[in-house]
Amino acid sequence: MAMIVQKYGGSSVATTEKIKNIAKTLVNRKNKGDDLVVVVSAMGDTTDDLISLAKNIANNPDKRELDVLMSTGEMMSAALLSMAIKDLGYDSVSYTAYQIGIKTKGQYGKCLIDDIESKKIISSIKKGKIIIVAGFQGINEWGDITTLGRGGSDTTAVALAVKLNGICEIYTDVDGIYSVDPRKYKNAQKLDFIDYEEMLELSSLGAQVMHSRSIELAQKYDIPVYVGLSNGNIKGTIIKGGNKMNLESKPVTGLATSDDDIAVTLKEIDANINILSSLFETVANRKINIDMISQTSPVNGKVNVSFTIPKDEEKECMDIIKNFSEEKNIAIDSNITKFSIVGIGMKTTSGVASRMFKLFSENSIEVKMITTSEIRITCTINQNDKNKAIKIVAEEFKL
Amino acid sequence: MAMIVQKYGGSSVATTEKIKNIAKTLVNRKNKGDDLVVVVSAMGDTTDDLISLAKNIANNPDKRELDVLMSTGEMMSAALLSMAIKDLGYDSVSYTAYQIGIKTKGQYGKCLIDDIESKKIISSIKKGKIIIVAGFQGINEWGDITTLGRGGSDTTAVALAVKLNGICEIYTDVDGIYSVDPRKYKNAQKLDFIDYEEMLELSSLGAQVMHSRSIELAQKYDIPVYVGLSNGNIKGTIIKGGNKMNLESKPVTGLATSDDDIAVTLKEIDANINILSSLFETVANRKINIDMISQTSPVNGKVNVSFTIPKDEEKECMDIIKNFSEEKNIAIDSNITKFSIVGIGMKTTSGVASRMFKLFSENSIEVKMITTSEIRITCTINQNDKNKAIKIVAEEFKL
Repeated sequence: MAMIVQKYGGSSVATTEKIKNIAKTLVNRKNKGDDLVVVVSAMGDTTDDLISLAKNIANNPDKRELDVLMSTGEMMSAALLSMAIKDLGYDSVSYTAYQIGIKTKGQYGKCLIDDIESKKIISSIKKGKIIIVAGFQGINEWGDITTLGRGGSDTTAVALAVKLNGICEIYTDVDGIYSVDPRKYKNAQKLDFIDYEEMLELSSLGAQVMHSRSIELAQKYDIPVYVGLSNGNIKGTIIKGGNKMNLESKPVTGLATSDDDIAVTLKEIDANINILSSLFETVANRKINIDMISQTSPVNGKVNVSFTIPKDEEKECMDIIKNFSEEKNIAIDSNITKFSIVGIGMKTTSGVASRMFKLFSENSIEVKMITTSEIRITCTINQNDKNKAIKIVAEEFKL
Repeated sequence: MAMIVQKYGGSSVATTEKIKNIAKTLVNRKNKGDDLVVVVSAMGDTTDDLISLAKNIANNPDKRELDVLMSTGEMMSAALLSMAIKDLGYDSVSYTAYQIGIKTKGQYGKCLIDDIESKKIISSIKKGKIIIVAGFQGINEWGDITTLGRGGSDTTAVALAVKLNGICEIYTDVDGIYSVDPRKYKNAQKLDFIDYEEMLELSSLGAQVMHSRSIELAQKYDIPVYVGLSNGNIKGTIIKGGNKMNLESKPVTGLATSDDDIAVTLKEIDANINILSSLFETVANRKINIDMISQTSPVNGKVNVSFTIPKDEEKECMDIIKNFSEEKNIAIDSNITKFSIVGIGMKTTSGVASRMFKLFSENSIEVKMITTSEIRITCTINQNDKNKAIKIVAEEFKL
């Protein structure tokens, strides 16, 4: 008898038929003696539909109200799944973030979970109920409804697993974590295990299997997270710490690409670190993620600096940037792909970067910007080189 | 400068375009110096769509979870209206029942409002915000989400008007209260005023303009309620106390019909009041409204008794009734219309009932069951006599 915290993603609960199937799976699991706390996402395209509604109302929908609106999607699927379980003759109860005190901090639309009041959940579990929790949502210190950002239900599940000291299982529409997104590279290999750090790098680099914050939480509290298909016999992937894959001398575990950013170059700005730090601070205060900053050496007291910003926050960023540079000195490159390879093995294997850049050079792929971490190399390339780059790098590193 | 509590019904907020129009109306009103607390229903057919979803999950959806599901409709429209106001440059905030403590008691799906914590609302009003409240919903003593029954947003609005000592305005898709439903009788007259008691009788008799409970609340606290179109110049109807219409010696104010009930007759049951009271108590405990009870005089210690039950609770009722009578002695009549006339004037004018029944007799309309109150006469007739009955009675009493 174990405490199991599961999460079912939007595609798993896309129809009432699918919800009824999950109810059956849960009831079977309950019969085996496990305690179940189940986090659900909104049904199918519900979140997108709600965002469309908001966009019909305002170009820039108020973020507090957008969170209220978006939180309804998960309430709906939670209520429906609980109904389906009760219809099978088992006891169940659905909870919103408000009801079980999922306390968050930070900005609307991208809050972080601060704490969860587990009392109500534990009391309901003791009564034999299967607990269904509306994912993706929280409340803040003013009692406002907040959301955790796209994929935030993963984080709800991991946070509950931490709080309840449970086993965490994330059920989704993919059968595990792959070295490369199989839609982008058909020979991609499924991983049995992946280290938190590797997963974290991959998540934040566009491998959208898991919400980054959920991996951070799992790593912090060392909670293994299973990721796989909900109702299949196919084995998924376990995300955990202390991965020994580097013993197999495979330096690269995964590859990720993202077309979600644009590159901004500021030309001939004063070589004064205060200007840049002030710019980056202003942007960071809006919780916009500036990435891949690179700067050339000063010439005549002037430097060029490039960095990437998320495409969907271009307008907000540019409004800020224009206060720091003349418009004629701002260059935008929208045609970029962020290309990253990740592996704990890089810590102990040298020459990984040079192998990749040599390959790119032999295949006439232009490398624009480069950043690295201990276990990751990221560069930007032209979007039309993306598929070729994925193929040659995946083959080189046997991904 | 006054405190105004408004309610916009589902058809008034059916599209984002309509929501934006309401936002403009509200901003204009705010500019005149009024404080605004605005209750909204779910958009258009949202509530029906949610019920359909639930019916796909279970034949008898769990009522607690159904309330969670249904409450999302009003949250959505509240968030969208608040967004629309903010998009016009005015400050606004949406609140769920949870956030402003709309405390309810009673059964899921048909709760009564017990109290509202006005502190948060008043503090937001003082900051100049237009307050948008998700109608139709509450919370109970366990912190569960509840709903108030169809049309319950009216009650949310009246309860807020009571609590905030405000003026109550109900905006809907009809331009006021009519003596007869204009869809059923085209010459029906719009009333400038109607007494609480008359409105209450009409509401509970199938004139579905207002939620009955909202009128009871308004009457209890003597809050006048304006009912009309949201954005028109057409004058609506004020529901209030101390109506002077009987001075005009018009004994009947309104007429209502309903096809929502069926008549049940139990034949030859023991003339023992304990049996019947036990039956009615059992049904009442399920919060099912048994109406129009009539019983014949005992013959050989046996009586016949007839009563009406709501069509949509037929199954639940019959399950109970079968415990009290043999199946062969239960007769069901589904082909009935409940036909009622209502008027404060009946208190002081005699002969109203006889005028109506004489008309029915002259026109070969069979009257089946009869019940009366001080200001109301209700009978059941065959459904195919309904239109004829409406016409002759409306003409007789100049409705």
